[in-house]
Formats: sequence, structure tokens, C-alpha cells
Amino acid sequence: MDKNSVREILEGVSEGKVSIDEAVLQLKEAPFKDIGYAKLDLHRGIRQGMSEVIYGAGKTPDQILGIVRTLKENGQKTILITRMHDEAAELLEKEVSDFSYDKLSHIGIVGEIPEPTGVGKIVVATGGTSDLPVAEEAAKCAEVYGNEVVRLYDVGVAGLHRLLGAMDEIMSARVIIAIAGMEGALASVIGGLADCPVIAVPTSVGYGASFNGLSALLSMLNSCASGVSVVNIDNGFGAAYQASMINHLR
Amino acid sequence: MDKNSVREILEGVSEGKVSIDEAVLQLKEAPFKDIGYAKLDLHRGIRQGMSEVIYGAGKTPDQILGIVRTLKENGQKTILITRMHDEAAELLEKEVSDFSYDKLSHIGIVGEIPEPTGVGKIVVATGGTSDLPVAEEAAKCAEVYGNEVVRLYDVGVAGLHRLLGAMDEIMSARVIIAIAGMEGALASVIGGLADCPVIAVPTSVGYGASFNGLSALLSMLNSCASGVSVVNIDNGFGAAYQASMINHLR
Amino acid sequence: MDKNSVREILEGVSEGKVSIDEAVLQLKEAPFKDIGYAKLDLHRGIRQGMSEVIYGAGKTPDQILGIVRTLKENGQKTILITRMHDEAAELLEKEVSDFSYDKLSHIGIVGEIPEPTGVGKIVVATGGTSDLPVAEEAAKCAEVYGNEVVRLYDVGVAGLHRLLGAMDEIMSARVIIAIAGMEGALASVIGGLADCPVIAVPTSVGYGASFNGLSALLSMLNSCASGVSVVNIDNGFGAAYQASMINHLR
Amino acid sequence: MDKNSVREILEGVSEGKVSIDEAVLQLKEAPFKDIGYAKLDLHRGIRQGMSEVIYGAGKTPDQILGIVRTLKENGQKTILITRMHDEAAELLEKEVSDFSYDKLSHIGIVGEIPEPTGVGKIVVATGGTSDLPVAEEAAKCAEVYGNEVVRLYDVGVAGLHRLLGAMDEIMSARVIIAIAGMEGALASVIGGLADCPVIAVPTSVGYGASFNGLSALLSMLNSCASGVSVVNIDNGFGAAYQASMINHLR
Amino acid sequence: MDKNSVREILEGVSEGKVSIDEAVLQLKEAPFKDIGYAKLDLHRGIRQGMSEVIYGAGKTPDQILGIVRTLKENGQKTILITRMHDEAAELLEKEVSDFSYDKLSHIGIVGEIPEPTGVGKIVVATGGTSDLPVAEEAAKCAEVYGNEVVRLYDVGVAGLHRLLGAMDEIMSARVIIAIAGMEGALASVIGGLADCPVIAVPTSVGYGASFNGLSALLSMLNSCASGVSVVNIDNGFGAAYQASMINHLR
Amino acid sequence: MDKNSVREILEGVSEGKVSIDEAVLQLKEAPFKDIGYAKLDLHRGIRQGMSEVIYGAGKTPDQILGIVRTLKENGQKTILITRMHDEAAELLEKEVSDFSYDKLSHIGIVGEIPEPTGVGKIVVATGGTSDLPVAEEAAKCAEVYGNEVVRLYDVGVAGLHRLLGAMDEIMSARVIIAIAGMEGALASVIGGLADCPVIAVPTSVGYGASFNGLSALLSMLNSCASGVSVVNIDNGFGAAYQASMINHLR
Amino acid sequence: MDKNSVREILEGVSEGKVSIDEAVLQLKEAPFKDIGYAKLDLHRGIRQGMSEVIYGAGKTPDQILGIVRTLKENGQKTILITRMHDEAAELLEKEVSDFSYDKLSHIGIVGEIPEPTGVGKIVVATGGTSDLPVAEEAAKCAEVYGNEVVRLYDVGVAGLHRLLGAMDEIMSARVIIAIAGMEGALASVIGGLADCPVIAVPTSVGYGASFNGLSALLSMLNSCASGVSVVNIDNGFGAAYQASMINHLR
Amino acid sequence: MDKNSVREILEGVSEGKVSIDEAVLQLKEAPFKDIGYAKLDLHRGIRQGMSEVIYGAGKTPDQILGIVRTLKENGQKTILITRMHDEAAELLEKEVSDFSYDKLSHIGIVGEIPEPTGVGKIVVATGGTSDLPVAEEAAKCAEVYGNEVVRLYDVGVAGLHRLLGAMDEIMSARVIIAIAGMEGALASVIGGLADCPVIAVPTSVGYGASFNGLSALLSMLNSCASGVSVVNIDNGFGAAYQASMINHLR
Repeated sequence: MDKNSVREILEGVSEGKVSIDEAVLQLKEAPFKDIGYAKLDLHRGIRQGMSEVIYGAGKTPDQILGIVRTLKENGQKTILITRMHDEAAELLEKEVSDFSYDKLSHIGIVGEIPEPTGVGKIVVATGGTSDLPVAEEAAKCAEVYGNEVVRLYDVGVAGLHRLLGAMDEIMSARVIIAIAGMEGALASVIGGLADCPVIAVPTSVGYGASFNGLSALLSMLNSCASGVSVVNIDNGFGAAYQASMINHLR
Repeated sequence: MDKNSVREILEGVSEGKVSIDEAVLQLKEAPFKDIGYAKLDLHRGIRQGMSEVIYGAGKTPDQILGIVRTLKENGQKTILITRMHDEAAELLEKEVSDFSYDKLSHIGIVGEIPEPTGVGKIVVATGGTSDLPVAEEAAKCAEVYGNEVVRLYDVGVAGLHRLLGAMDEIMSARVIIAIAGMEGALASVIGGLADCPVIAVPTSVGYGASFNGLSALLSMLNSCASGVSVVNIDNGFGAAYQASMINHLR
Repeated sequence: MDKNSVREILEGVSEGKVSIDEAVLQLKEAPFKDIGYAKLDLHRGIRQGMSEVIYGAGKTPDQILGIVRTLKENGQKTILITRMHDEAAELLEKEVSDFSYDKLSHIGIVGEIPEPTGVGKIVVATGGTSDLPVAEEAAKCAEVYGNEVVRLYDVGVAGLHRLLGAMDEIMSARVIIAIAGMEGALASVIGGLADCPVIAVPTSVGYGASFNGLSALLSMLNSCASGVSVVNIDNGFGAAYQASMINHLR
Repeated sequence: MDKNSVREILEGVSEGKVSIDEAVLQLKEAPFKDIGYAKLDLHRGIRQGMSEVIYGAGKTPDQILGIVRTLKENGQKTILITRMHDEAAELLEKEVSDFSYDKLSHIGIVGEIPEPTGVGKIVVATGGTSDLPVAEEAAKCAEVYGNEVVRLYDVGVAGLHRLLGAMDEIMSARVIIAIAGMEGALASVIGGLADCPVIAVPTSVGYGASFNGLSALLSMLNSCASGVSVVNIDNGFGAAYQASMINHLR
Repeated sequence: MDKNSVREILEGVSEGKVSIDEAVLQLKEAPFKDIGYAKLDLHRGIRQGMSEVIYGAGKTPDQILGIVRTLKENGQKTILITRMHDEAAELLEKEVSDFSYDKLSHIGIVGEIPEPTGVGKIVVATGGTSDLPVAEEAAKCAEVYGNEVVRLYDVGVAGLHRLLGAMDEIMSARVIIAIAGMEGALASVIGGLADCPVIAVPTSVGYGASFNGLSALLSMLNSCASGVSVVNIDNGFGAAYQASMINHLR
Repeated sequence: MDKNSVREILEGVSEGKVSIDEAVLQLKEAPFKDIGYAKLDLHRGIRQGMSEVIYGAGKTPDQILGIVRTLKENGQKTILITRMHDEAAELLEKEVSDFSYDKLSHIGIVGEIPEPTGVGKIVVATGGTSDLPVAEEAAKCAEVYGNEVVRLYDVGVAGLHRLLGAMDEIMSARVIIAIAGMEGALASVIGGLADCPVIAVPTSVGYGASFNGLSALLSMLNSCASGVSVVNIDNGFGAAYQASMINHLR
Repeated sequence: MDKNSVREILEGVSEGKVSIDEAVLQLKEAPFKDIGYAKLDLHRGIRQGMSEVIYGAGKTPDQILGIVRTLKENGQKTILITRMHDEAAELLEKEVSDFSYDKLSHIGIVGEIPEPTGVGKIVVATGGTSDLPVAEEAAKCAEVYGNEVVRLYDVGVAGLHRLLGAMDEIMSARVIIAIAGMEGALASVIGGLADCPVIAVPTSVGYGASFNGLSALLSMLNSCASGVSVVNIDNGFGAAYQASMINHLR
Repeated sequence: MDKNSVREILEGVSEGKVSIDEAVLQLKEAPFKDIGYAKLDLHRGIRQGMSEVIYGAGKTPDQILGIVRTLKENGQKTILITRMHDEAAELLEKEVSDFSYDKLSHIGIVGEIPEPTGVGKIVVATGGTSDLPVAEEAAKCAEVYGNEVVRLYDVGVAGLHRLLGAMDEIMSARVIIAIAGMEGALASVIGGLADCPVIAVPTSVGYGASFNGLSALLSMLNSCASGVSVVNIDNGFGAAYQASMINHLR
């Protein structure tokens, strides 16, 4: 609970406008709405500048629909749903008028994608074609959060000229999301070339000793380039969220 | 090699001011100085806005001294040395006039720490007292890179009131570096409270199933809070470097 | 074999009421019933205060039915079946009159859930909605073992106010079962807030570097809060069993 | 921060006895004392019933001494220090009058061990002689927290008669701490024999594929006996802390 | 190539009965029959006393049929097929007259199970009912190799009286195969009770931190009981093979 | 980008034949063709002597077809597709006239396999029948790259005479690809017998503690024989690629 | 507790020669002697045919001396001490007259090595010179347990002719202990050549990806040769113990 | 044993020049010299073209001296000793006249380094200064085996211009040894640039999640560049050995 709201409630109490029991209640119940299977954070947009997102994995289509309706009723304009199953998407396509779904990245969006409000551009770069689902998760989330996104796909280090041919885009980025599976070397090479923060996303692309993304993850954590931080394997959303935060800093 | 310098050399060639062989030479040799055991990047300050740092681990005292001298001769004003051994520090204390050393964090600095030039403040928070060496590495590096640093030590989640008592500092940060060993829960809790980017640093503090920081690392990578990215175990420098980048974005 | 029964048999022998061969037989055969594919412990209720449970995984529907019938014939009133497959549940629904099944937690119960006999309340808390199957396994098992259960779902640490809003429940618990996947930080935060034993259950909820629950498991084992112990990944039953033991201590 | 203290402060505000700014201050600063390198929890004894413990690993002798003095000045009667280095112990032996140290378990105690206040007995059992350092950490901590401890050492399952010969002690325990390295089977066998909660402590005793306690840890987590929970490798303190909590439940 | 056959060929050469080129040919081609996708060892029965076995996993039904036919044509009386798929079993049931198949253990047998020729009895013991597929693989293979087998199922250490009730069988064994998943403690307890070699088979039974048998495997390798050796996870065949070797030693 | 092409473009600029902007363009765009989801390397045949290969895993049938068409249009005569799904093969069989597919190894080939141009023979040896899919991937790729291949299947070390019987083939190889799962000992034994480079391919053949090829991988990396290097688990293509490179050295 | 002694005590009770309390006492206290830090098994020689061994690691010199004296006083003629530290050896050399110590294998022996009583020979084979400490542990233990030992050192598979040159020894063994680090292929090759049980001992010899013996361990567990079982890394004693058991079977 | 020698011995037998027993003897004893603690391969130079190397780790100074003397007596001109300890080097410096030692790489050489006999040049490239010990092991071994070596140190991918500035050397190599720790991306980037075989050597340089070279190892095994194979962590010798084999192919 952030200090300001504590102070506001306290001021209400001090001025006699708020009773003590009411205050205790507010401190406890205000910031979320309990709909049984979930406690929805309705203040997140205010508190953290980015509104509640629905993590679709492990939720039934009905649960997702219920959460979407609750958020809409409480005034959230754009609702982002990540890691959605096709089945849930089908239900929402029927029941929610302004819903759209991207099968590749399993991203669902209710409402419109807002105009970009970020300072600069977010570059989303991938090592190969197989990294596209994660890349599109990152790109679409970044767009929902109000960012202009530049896609730079299939620029893996094994064909360095492809990456060097995109130096213009790399040098013009405010943040770069570097996405790669297998050996994940893309993060280090981009980290060495760019002069902006790089958020690396290891992907589970590969086989054998890639161990479902472990190889790329370790590689990125040990990057010899400075200015690189890492999120979970296949976590395009997480990278986009932090990139958007950075891109909105003024 | 960034595109601008290619263009500049090409323009020199086109205008007849630069011969082809000279151009090839420049393209190859300009950006670094080869002193045998190392190829020093003298343009990094220009290219990436942050000058060359010396990674002290695995280098002999003489090698470090040699690199310091070369960098000084080439005009670098402040030189940061990380993961320095005491032995190397002793040599530099004798041979380099403006050298200072912090035994706790193994950070050596040649020259003066510059005035802060960042936009806001970087908060460096730790879970416990044992995380201090890593925290000081982060804090000192951030200061060398021109940032105002707020230290928030021993605010681990087992005593949540200590962390909640520092909400003012947390809410006033532009970037937060969250440092913790053991179960690394600090990153998630701070990530949930703050509205700025959080860079998490797992530390090797702990025993048994902490597996030298693996537990904290996995924990931070799987953070249920958005806006958290992670660097290598004990990598205070890496977190500071990216935090500084973010703090200098305007 | 506990000492008392040894003594009783010995007394029978000493008093001539029990022949030696009979005694050897009793020592060997008394405590279980062998039905071929399983040796059922009919004395467990007496010996350990909690009657035999059927671990449903890896048993055929027919085997489960056979065990249920044997236990009923030997007078067990309530029979708990964990990790049951739907297929086995269908068979039992046909064949066993007082059988009920919860599809979410894969818990089957034969007979009635007894009235609570425990001293206080067991709080079952989860980090997110996806942890519900494990949470319900824990809650239902605790109820079968005679405990009042308070469910506290979706109170993960990324939205700390949700957890702080439930301080009343937390402070009123006699034992808390803290269930979380991903980074598993819930156990540490609850462990720091509560003044009763906390049993942590890591779940396999998550993806990528959660490594099917390993991340949460390590996190909980390394909890910086005291008073926290841990059971196997997804082991709601195990946590409930020990919590019930504790809740019945007088 | 628990709800009661929030309520008390709010009542003070409501009644005009406490100003708003003062209230904010109290909410933030009351519960701990900041001595620079550590934030000491002076209310823990009140809040959780067991007073602050000093984790000695990774702290300098001077830091430990400083914390001890602060806690003593604030009225703590018995101070427990775990994982202390001999060097720190030597300093405290000089500077602190009522300090005692056990070299085997690296446990330091300032003040007197209180009379037992627990309901029953805590049995501390080990698989072998090499587990003694961990066992003594558990036993001594349990005693400091006011428990009667029964030591049952070297009763590993390879010589089952040694364990069966101690059935009296096992059956008379209110909580059992089962400590073993290598394959850690002791926890399962005791868990099957006893009718009280068992807290298992894997130790790093062994070589080769024991992987510093990993083998025993996994073994205990997968125990086929119910009623067993697990703490970190070599974490005698953690087991004692929870055992004491359980032993004080009425 | 064993020395005797080298000597025999050499003697043939020396006596002029075998030409050099023929000898080279014999040295190279004698011991196996190449049927394209496999090189069948027709001398194994002679050389190692136990005839060629077919590892069914990863072979097509046709390949298995082809190998069976080749072995039969070359006079092998009993043919053991392990890890067979049901599909392959169906083919062989049609095509091979004296074929029988056990669905539980995926063991197929062509020909008759021979009369026991071993010295004593092989006891096959399991921790639980779920270990039966592995146990039956072991038991059936041991029978095919001419051993009398005693099955001792569901004698896990959590109910020690079940195991102690079978001391007669344990003490009468010449070799014991101890099969268990989860924490695998059975091997240590049996190893401590028995006075004959124990071959431990970890199984993949369990969930969560059993990591598909890793827990049981490590446990068994670290057994505190002497006289225990270990084979691969779920390798009932391997245990039976060695047990049979031991049981046939005179 | 290799130095020669830089030099050529620079010479063009110097001689006034190429404008600066055109040169920048050429430096960036020449070496690949961007078809949206992929950037195809059309110069690879020239630059590295072996033309672009299509990694089929994670690409849709349409994407593969699109890439094949682009490569054909740009004059590539033989196109190799690895790790193809049957579904994609069906599409190509319809749409591409000179396409052939091997179901076992999932290798697709467009165009004809060229005449061998290598210096000597590549021997592809496997430990068992189950390694055939990987072996055929290696063998077919090597053939596409212009090599004569000798197949030596099912020569695992458990029946050493099978391997010793093939000494002629082993001694006549210029490079050997040693493919094995389980314990992967084949690489060491062949490495000790042969006098040419050995490239080892661990396979995921096995179960239990083979951990999907990890066992064979570690085994091969630790080979006590000199002259052995290793590629990823199941990476028949990678081994063939390097073997072909070596076989074409003159 | 084995059945016979239970029966004997029961018979004593039945015949009135043994009182009940005495019987309970005997059942509990007979089989071991408690000397505080250890419970010594004085009946092991009788019960399992091989007398108590002292595991020296983690025991102080004084503890070892104390155990030796107790065992001697209770009539044990030969006492084996494994994994002894030099320091303990020095103490015993002073205090115990018939003590001898082998620095290489850290084996101490009190009393005389008995005449061989086993049926045949135990062959101890190693892959390299660096495996000698483990090999000597195995060889010396086997000798203490009454076996004739044949040492076959440095016969690793990279130089196969060294192993093939020892076929006589291999074929004449009753049990073989195959000891190897690195890739551990020795076990498979010997397993394929020999017709007797092979006990494999992985050693921690190697570096890098040998991961302290993990590579050899996995390799041996996955051996493609039948008749191979495995003990813990570096566990020469364990292999010798089981080998001796097998060698004494008649 | 290679076929030719078998044939020669057989011809001797056939012609009556060699008796059978003598032949058996030759087949067994010829190829190595047994000096107790080692079996030295005196024919390796002939059989595999590269003479016996001494692996210094785990051998005593005396053992190394003994092996050196035996090899010299048997006519080996240049003797390579890897992973030598300084202590052993000191002994050899005293006792062996033509011995030289490189402290950095722990390489000892007896005799002279021969003139290069390879076809082309071997390039040894490293990511950083800390990789030098491994790089020098590789370089020196390659020189001993008769190769011209080009050293290309500190060309890690974080400063790509350093590597691109060395394109001449890269393009002129016949084999490249790419050595890197941390994320090991150097292998992929060089693999993409070069048109010759690349042998990658992961090093244990790094900290935290580099896990002693595991990160670099996995990275290199998963290289997205073709034509890259990998040897063990820090195995400079192994890379040099295979590189030399390749460089001597004609």
C-alpha cells in the first residue's frame, strides 16, 4: 500500500470525515475487487501507470471472461490478455464485442490499442524465424502500453551482415528487446553495438542441449556486454512491460 | 562498427582525402588499442556514453596497471575497476596517485567520482546485511557513472515493516536495484510496490539449497511482479550500468 | 512396530495364552491386510491417529475400488483418495454409494467429512488463481482430517495490499499452508507476518525458468523467514496432513 | 505491519492524541532500530513470540558485537547467534560477560538458557555421527527457545535395530527433528513410526552423488511417509524454530 | 573378442587348415549376423551364458519381428523382448506361434520359460503398488534367465511392519532386487537387514521433486547400507540380468 | 561482412563508380533477401562454400515452401531441409517437382544429390539401431554436401567384436561421425582406434538417467580419447556439415 | 531385527527363562553398544557376515580411536577404517599397536588382513593412473574381507589394446570392479567382454564437464552392456563390499 | 588393435616363423609398456600419427618423471605434458635437460618444438584476457604437433569491431579454435564469419550463473552457426589435437 493513500485515509480520520472502522476497512478492501477465484487490482493503472493484465495460462475461458467483464465494468479501457488458449479466445470472440486475438502470440486484446505515448521507439529483434511467437507477444504488449515498435526479425549472429545491415534501427532505439533461443548470443552482440538499455528474452527454441531455453538463459545472464538485463524464458510480456516503463521515462 | 563512422570514412574516400588502403586500415584498427594481452576500447565513451571498465578478476596486478596507464594516456578521466584483488589494489595504491579502493566491494577507482548527471535517483536495496558487498559494488559503480544513489539496506521481506517504512524512498526512485540472496523475494515485493523499472541482482548469500545464488536467481526470473529484469548472480556492476543508462534517458 | 504391541504379545506368550509360533505370526501379519497388489494398513488410524489414505496416481480404477472396499469392510468410515483420475472417479461413482469427487483437485472422498475436531483454524493461502487445484487438495484433505479451513486465494506478493488486507485471517490461524508457484515468495512474506507455523507448498505453476516448480521449491527452502517448512511440489495433501497433526495438538 | 497496531495508531489520530505526521512516522519507524548495516527488529518477541536471532555468517565480528549490544540495550534477555565464526566468538568472549559458545555447532548464546516452557519434548534424531554439528545447532536453538530436548544420535536406518530400540523416545515426542545426510531415509522411517509432526533436516554429509546434501533433500521431500516437512540443507536452526512453535501450541 | 577364439583361429592357421585371409575374415565376421538395421550377437549365449535380448524401445514392429525370426533360425530357444510397445506385441501375436506378452511390464517372450537353474531365490521387493511394472519386468526377466523369483510387493518403509513381517523371505534370498520410487529408502533398509547382495532399482514413480526418478536414484547411490549397488531408473531388466548372474555363481 | 567485399565497394566509391549512399546501401542490403518472416542468405554458398539450409522445426509448411521458392528463384540448385514435419513434406511433395523426403530422418531434399567432391570417405557409425534417425540425418546431409558416406550401424561397445570387425572401414575414413545414446562410449573407443578426426553426436536414445541425451553428451565431452569433438544432442546435420568441411580440405 | 533372535527371545519368555521386561530390554538394547557419539553394531559380523567398518570422514581422531578400542574390546579381530584423514592415522599409529595406514587410499587397518576365503578372484580395473586412490580403497577393502584381488590398472578404452591384452585376467574373474572417471566407458566395454558381474565405480577424476564424477556416473548407469551395476562416485569400499559378498557365495 | 598388425602376426604364424603362443603374446603385449602405475603407448605415434601425451593432473612429480624417462628411452623426441603442477615442473627442470615449462598454461615440453608440417594456419581466438591460460595450452600443443599458430586474443563479441578488424586472419585460417567463457558467443560469431571448421572451447571464466563454464558450454553446443564442434570446458589440448589432425589432412 503506498504512503499517499495511507496519508489520505489518515487525514479523513483526523478530520472526522472517516470513522476508524471505516478506515480499517478501506485500508483493507479498497485496492482490489474479490470475484472469488481472483482478487482484481483496480488501482494498478493509477498506482503503477499500467493497468491490470490477465495472465491467461491456467485460467478457464469462463474465468477469463468474468475478469474481463469486471475490469470493463470498472472502467478499464484496454485489457491485455497473455498466454491465452484458443478455446478462451473463441469464447471471448463471441461474448466481447471489441476483442481481437493473435493466434501466433496467444495475445488477446479487449478495446483499442492506444496511440503511442512513449518517448522513443522500442526495437524488438529476434535471432530466428522460430522466435516469432515470443517476439509478437513482446511487440503487441508494447503497443498496448503505448509504444512505437520496430520489428527486426531473423537477425541472428550466425549471419552477422543481417544484423549490421540494421544498424540504423539499432542506433535509433530507446530500448531494445533482444529475443533468441539456442545459444542466445544475439543479446551480447546487440548489447555491444547499442547505446541504450537492452532487455534480453531467452526463448525455448532449440533442441537437445538447449534444455528448453536454459542455454539461452544462461548465455544472456553471462553476457560480456554491459547494459543487458534478462527476463524469464519466453517472457515477451515481461520484457515489453519494463521496456515500456523505460520508454515512458522523461 | 556503427554506421556513422563507416559513412565518414566512405566520405573521406569519396572526396579523395582518404586512400582505400588507409580506409581499410581505419575500419580495422581505429576503435581499439592492442596492448598484447588486451584490446582496449578507446571509443566506448563516445560510442556508448560510458567509458571502458576494467574487469579485475583473472587479471594480474601488472596487467591492470598497464591497462590503467594506457587508458589514462588516452585521456580517460575516471577509470572503474571491478572485482579487484587486494594484491592488485596494493600495487595501484603505490603506482597510481589518484587511486582509491573499497575493500568490501573490491571496487577500485582511478580519478574522481563525477558530479551526478542522471535525471533522478537510483535506489539500491538489499534483503540483508550479507548482501552489502554486492550492493556497494552497484552503488559505487552507479556513482562513478554519474548518478545519485540512495542506499536502503537490510529491508528483507521477512520483516515487511522495514520495507514499508521506506515507501518514500521507493516511490521517489527512477530506477531501483533490488539485491537479495536466499529466496530473493525482495525483487517481487519491491516490483509490486514501485512504479519504476526494477533491476534484480541475485546474490550468492545463503547455504544449502541456495546453491550459490541459483535459488535467488530463479526466484527473480520468475517474479510475479511486472517490470522486473535480472542480471547475473552477484553482478552489482551490471545492474548499475543499466540503471545508469535508464537514469540518463531524457 | 510400536513397543506396546510387542509387549502385549510378549505378555500373552509369558502367560501361556499365546503360543510362540502364533506370536511370531502375529508380529508379522497383524498390522496390514495383503490384497495382492497392496498391503493395507488397517491399524494406522489407531497408531497414528489418521487413517489410511489412497494415493490414486498409478493405480487402476479396479485397484482403487478394491482397496476402498477392503477398507470399508474393515470399518474405516471416511476414506480419502488423492490424485485420482477422472476415469477412476467414474467407476467409484457407479459402485460406491457415498462417494463424492472434486474434479479440480482430483480428490475423492468415500463417506462423510467429519465435524472439525482441531483446536483452531488452518488458513490455506495461494499466490494466484492457477494454484487452486493444489489449494483445494490441501483444503479438502484438511477438512477430511477434521479441521476448520479458511481459504485465502490469490494474495500473491506482487499486490501486497491484497495480503495485508487479510491480516485478520493470518493472525487468527493456528497453522498456515502457503501455496505458490513462480518465485514462491508468498511463504517468506507470510512467514514474516504470522506467529504460527507455516507449511509451504511450491506449485508447478509457471513456465520457463520455473522448471516445473523447482524455482518455488528452492525459494521456499531458502526462506529468510523463520518458522517455515516445506513439502514436495504440488503436495497439498502432505501439507494438510502435517497441518492437521499440528492443529490437533493440545 | 499487523492490523492491531494500525488500529491503535488510527485511534490515537481519531482522538486527536496523535498528529497525522506523527502517525505516518510511527507507521514507518516504530518496529525496528536502524544501526546502519542492519535494521534490528525489536518487536519480534512481542509480535511473533520468539525474539530476534543473529545469523552470524557473512557478518564481521564487530557487526555481531554491535548488534548484540543494541539488542541488550533494548532489553532482550537471551540472544541466539547461529553460524558464528570462531573469530567472532573470540571477540564476544572478551567483550560480552554472559556469552557462551559451542565450537561444534557454531552456536553462540548471550544470557541464560531459559527454563523449558513448551508443552512436551522435542526429539532430535540423527542418522550418523557426522550429522552432530547440525543436530547440536537444532538442539541448542530449541533449548534457547524454551524446550526440553531429547537427543537420539546415530540411529540411521542401515542398522534398524538402533532406531527400533528407541521407540519409547520416539513415541513420547511432541515434535521430532529428523536429521540425516547421504540418502536421508531416516525421515521416512521415523515418519512412518511416529504419530507426531516430523521436521526433516537434510545435511551435507556424504560425498560423490550426495551433491552436498541434494540427495538427502530430495529424498526427504519425496518421503513416502505422511506428516513430514523439510527445511533447508543443514538448517538446524530453522527446524528448531518451527518445532518450538509447535511445541508451544496449547 | 575373447582370447580362446583368437587362439583357435590361430591354431587353424598354424596347422594350415585355415588360410590367412579366411582367418582375417573369421576374426571379423564370425560373432554376429548383420541384418541391415542390426548386428545380432549369435554367440552371446556361449560367450556370456545368457542369450541375446531384444530392447524393444525405438524399434519398429517389423524390425522386432525380423530380429526374432533371425534368432529363431539360428537356434535361440527362448527370446526375451523388453520395453515392447503394444503395437509390436500385436504383430508378434499374429506372426509368432509361441509368443506371450505381459501388458503391465511390456515384456514379450518367445518360447518357453526354462526351469530354474539358479542356486537360490531372487527376491523382488517394491516400495509401493505403482512400482509394479518395473518389478514385473525384473521378475519376468529373472524367470526367463532360469531363476526362482519371490515377489514381495508394497513393503515400503513408511509402514515398516510390512517389511519386518517379511523377514523370512528377506533372509532366505540369495540376491534381492529392491525397487522403489519417491525417496527410494527401501534399498537402505533392506540393505541393512539382509546379508546378501542387494541390487537397487530406482523408479520414476512420484511427482514434483522426484524429478522422474532422480530422487530415488541419488538416494540409492548414497545408501548408508553396505552391499547395495544400483542400476538405471526403471531398469528392471538390468537388475534381473545381474541378479541372475550372481544367482548362477557356484 | 568479409573484408573483400568491403574493399570492392570502397574501390567503387574511390573510382567514382559508386556513390556514397549507394555504398551504404550495398553494405547493408546485399548479402540477404528479406521475405518478411526470414532473411535468406543468398551469398552463403559463395562465402562459406555450402549453401543455405532450411531448419524445418518451428516453421509452417507455407513458410518452408516460400523459402524454397525464393532460394530456387535465386539459383540454388540443391536445397536441404532438416527436421521437417511430415505435414510440410506433404505440401512440398505436391508443390515442388524435384522434392524427395526421408520419413525416418525428417530430411527433405529439393533437387539432386550432387556427385561426391570430397577427398575421402565419411564413416557414419552408430551404437545401436535406435540411433538410425540421427545417423540418416547425418548421412543424407553429408551426401547432399558432396561426400561419399559409409554407414556402419549397430556397432556399440557392448559387443566390441562388431566394431573390431569393421576396422577396415574405420581405418579408411577421412572423418568419422560417431553417433550414440545411452552412455555414448562409442566415441571414446572409435577415437582410440582411428587416426582421423572424430565428430561425436550424442543422441537422446535411452531412458531414466540418460536424461534425454545428457548422459551421452557429458560422456563424449569427457572422452579420454584425443581427437574427438562434439556437437549438440541429435545434431546429425551439424556433424555432417563440419565433417564435409574437413573432407573437402585439400 | 532378524526373525531368529525375536524367536529366541520369545522362546526364552515362553519357557519362563526370560522375564517380559528383560525381553523388551533385550529386543531394544542387545544389538549395539552406545558410546555417546556412536552406536556400534557388535553383531554385524554375525548377522551379515562382515564386521563393522568405520567411516572415517567427519569423525575426529579421538572418536575414531574410541570406536577402535570399543570394537577391539568386544573382540573384533580386523577393523577397517575408510576415508581416514592423515591426522587420525597419526594418532592411531601412536596408540594402536597393530595399525597400518595407506596414505594413497586413506585406508587404515587394525589387525591382520585375513587369508582369502572367497571362491574366486576379484579383478579391480581402472581407466587411468589418476583412479588409483579409489582403486586401492576397493582392493584393500576386498582383501580385508578375505578376497584374492587382481589389479589391472590404466586399461582405459582410449587404448583398447591395453584392455584386450588383459583378457585372461578378465575371463578368470568371479567379479570385476571397473573404476573410471571422465566418460566412464570402461564399465561398458568390460561389461561387454566379461561373463561375470561387473560393479562400476565412477570416479571424480576429470575436469570441466566431468562435473566431479557426474559424467562417469551417468555413463555407467546407462551402460549398454548388461550385468553392470553402479555404486556412488569414488565409493571403492562399497564396490568391494558387494564384490566380496558375491565372491563368498557358494 | 588395427588389422594390419593382426595380419602380420598371422602371416608369421602361417609361415611358421612365429609360434602360436608367441603370437598370442604379441597380440597381447606389444603395443604398450607397463611401468606399474601406467601402461605407456609406445606405438601411438605410428598408429595415430601423434605421439603419447602425459596428462599431468593427478600424477605425482615422480610418476611424471618416470613416464618421461620411459618415453625418452623408447625414442620419443618431443614429449608434451599438460595440466602440470608447478611442483612437478620444478622436479623436471632439475632432472631433465631439455625441459621447458610455461607457468600460465601449465604446459611442459621435453625436447624441441618441431618445424610446422601442417598444411595451413591454426587461428587461436579468445573472447577475453582471462581466457589466456586455455588459449596458450591450445596454442602450445598445436605448435608441438607441428602447426603454425596465429594468436587472436581479446576479440570478444561485446566489441565486435575488434573481431571484424581481424577478418584477414580469420579468412586465412585452415582451422579456428574459438575460446571463450561467460556466454561463449564468440564461437557462433566466428562460425558465421569463417569458411573453415571451428573447434569451440568453453572456458570456466566467469562467475555466478556461468556455473564454471556450463553456460559457455551449452551456448557453444547450441551454436546457430554451422561448422562448429565443441570440446570439454578448458580443454585447450583437445581442441589443438583435433585441429592439428585436420590441419595435416592433405
